[in-house]
Amino acid sequence: MKTYISYCAIAFMTASVGLAQAAERPADVPEGMGALPASVPVPADNPMTPAKVELGKQLYLDPALSKSGNISCNSCHNLGSWGVDNQVRSIGHKWQRGGRNAPTSFNAAFWSTQFWDGRAPQLEDQAKGPPMNPVEMADDTEAQLVARLQEAGYGPEFDKVFGKNGLSFNNMAKAIGAFERTLLTPDAPFDRYVRGEGDISAAAKRGMKKVDDIGCTSCHSGPLFTNNTFQQFNYGTDTGREAVTGKHDDDHYFRVQSWRNVAMTAPYFHDGSVKTLSEAVRIMARVQLGTKLSDADVADIVAFLKTLTGTPPSVTYPVFPRPAGHALNWMD
Amino acid sequence: MKTYISYCAIAFMTASVGLAQAAERPADVPEGMGALPASVPVPADNPMTPAKVELGKQLYLDPALSKSGNISCNSCHNLGSWGVDNQVRSIGHKWQRGGRNAPTSFNAAFWSTQFWDGRAPQLEDQAKGPPMNPVEMADDTEAQLVARLQEAGYGPEFDKVFGKNGLSFNNMAKAIGAFERTLLTPDAPFDRYVRGEGDISAAAKRGMKKVDDIGCTSCHSGPLFTNNTFQQFNYGTDTGREAVTGKHDDDHYFRVQSWRNVAMTAPYFHDGSVKTLSEAVRIMARVQLGTKLSDADVADIVAFLKTLTGTPPSVTYPVFPRPAGHALNWMD
Repeated sequence: MKTYISYCAIAFMTASVGLAQAAERPADVPEGMGALPASVPVPADNPMTPAKVELGKQLYLDPALSKSGNISCNSCHNLGSWGVDNQVRSIGHKWQRGGRNAPTSFNAAFWSTQFWDGRAPQLEDQAKGPPMNPVEMADDTEAQLVARLQEAGYGPEFDKVFGKNGLSFNNMAKAIGAFERTLLTPDAPFDRYVRGEGDISAAAKRGMKKVDDIGCTSCHSGPLFTNNTFQQFNYGTDTGREAVTGKHDDDHYFRVQSWRNVAMTAPYFHDGSVKTLSEAVRIMARVQLGTKLSDADVADIVAFLKTLTGTPPSVTYPVFPRPAGHALNWMD
Repeated sequence: MKTYISYCAIAFMTASVGLAQAAERPADVPEGMGALPASVPVPADNPMTPAKVELGKQLYLDPALSKSGNISCNSCHNLGSWGVDNQVRSIGHKWQRGGRNAPTSFNAAFWSTQFWDGRAPQLEDQAKGPPMNPVEMADDTEAQLVARLQEAGYGPEFDKVFGKNGLSFNNMAKAIGAFERTLLTPDAPFDRYVRGEGDISAAAKRGMKKVDDIGCTSCHSGPLFTNNTFQQFNYGTDTGREAVTGKHDDDHYFRVQSWRNVAMTAPYFHDGSVKTLSEAVRIMARVQLGTKLSDADVADIVAFLKTLTGTPPSVTYPVFPRPAGHALNWMD
């Protein structure tokens, strides 16, 4: 069961989160499109509290989660660059490259499953992946990671949030999940347009109509511009969701990515192989819809997609717990 | 020529910077010791402005300074862990290790030279080192780095701060230097004690007397607990300042490190070889002063050094400039 929490009500959110209701929704906005929702789903077993979010923020930014002490969640999902690292495939432990392009952590609270192949149901499950992935943070065991966090001084921080002996791998993931539910990007130009608070360009309006006309929005639908389903994308050699379900029917199936902030999260696709948004639009139209777009259409669609860049969250850099007077035992 | 700027006067500093004057300086505080100065030296050719500091903050945290797009100043001088990475020797380009332990960026604005061997006169010079170091950020040329910053969208940001065509390697270093002058840690327990605003433990007081009695403070002197000189430290194989000056008289000479926040910057020494502050204290007393300290004396000195941990700066995570709709050209 999930409850919904208004992020406007959360004291630690920035003041920029708008409460304005749609005064006059412009007539040209296609059915289904809308402003970023003002609430995110919150699992019943992981309610958000300011202390938990603060702990999650420490953990998100702390390279102590990695075996080497060199890699944090933020290394690949950088808060300064829209929750991504702009790499084709991220650099991990000992400079190994990950298998797929790192998806953004911004607005990930809205997705019904996590990872390109949806192998994690929600943020808390996702947060357990990279620490144990040998090409990412490369922790050998959950116990090793928990022991390092204990040594780093996280024990009392967890106890404050989760009660006595609160430091555990599960609670680490809960705190990170709670923090990630604050990484929302409201008030994109498109959102303000929908709410009757501002305008977008004529090119963006043509693009908005075009994506609806040619059928992009059959999957990139709703206010999130994803219907949160898996769709077959026959592009590249990665078999996608088949490796999760073991079903050949899922061959080359991937999660439909949101268009929110898509202009800021290049390069594109699960393999990060496409450098520009224009090229990504052109390929998607061709491969998924059998549509050959003109250069003008591509430009219009890109202009529209750029109106989906919102306001990034304001985050104060945390101070990590650290033991006074002795070094941590990083490993290589 | 250097002017001095009161950091209390800088609008973007936290409110925690104290202006209190020494109401009653306790009689047991040795001559010369004092609270962290309320002003940092600022070079006449690089005055601090809020816009320049903000740009410097972006640059400090942005991995776009590195050839790979993976390494920022903050990678080794993490704002969350007292301006260090707690590594023996930092991890750089392609997982290479640096030659020496990364010194903290906190309070570095106070040092009269930078790096362990003092090869950079001030922060602006230091900031030019890591980008061009092949084992750190590994940029091939200054022009390559400037072109990447241009591509990343930094042009207008530099123009705002430095005027037309403001984006240059020199100005990058100036902005970072300006930001680093805000990384100060006032209001340590010792500072409050000196100002008559709080107490420190009996053990810390014994340690304070001991470091003065045995002569540590002949070099670790003044409010910064460094006299900003080079001293011979015959420990390990690194020849230190000799490689900078070419003079054999400088063999094994290193900058006297400040004790400010020393409890939070393990491991210790230029080679990062010592894991605990206790051991560092014991070795320094033996090698530099010929003094064999008792365990009780070591414990007292460590208790005193822990009172020199100040209040870290409050930094809001910046949003990096990035081009909309296309990837940056990281290299490996």
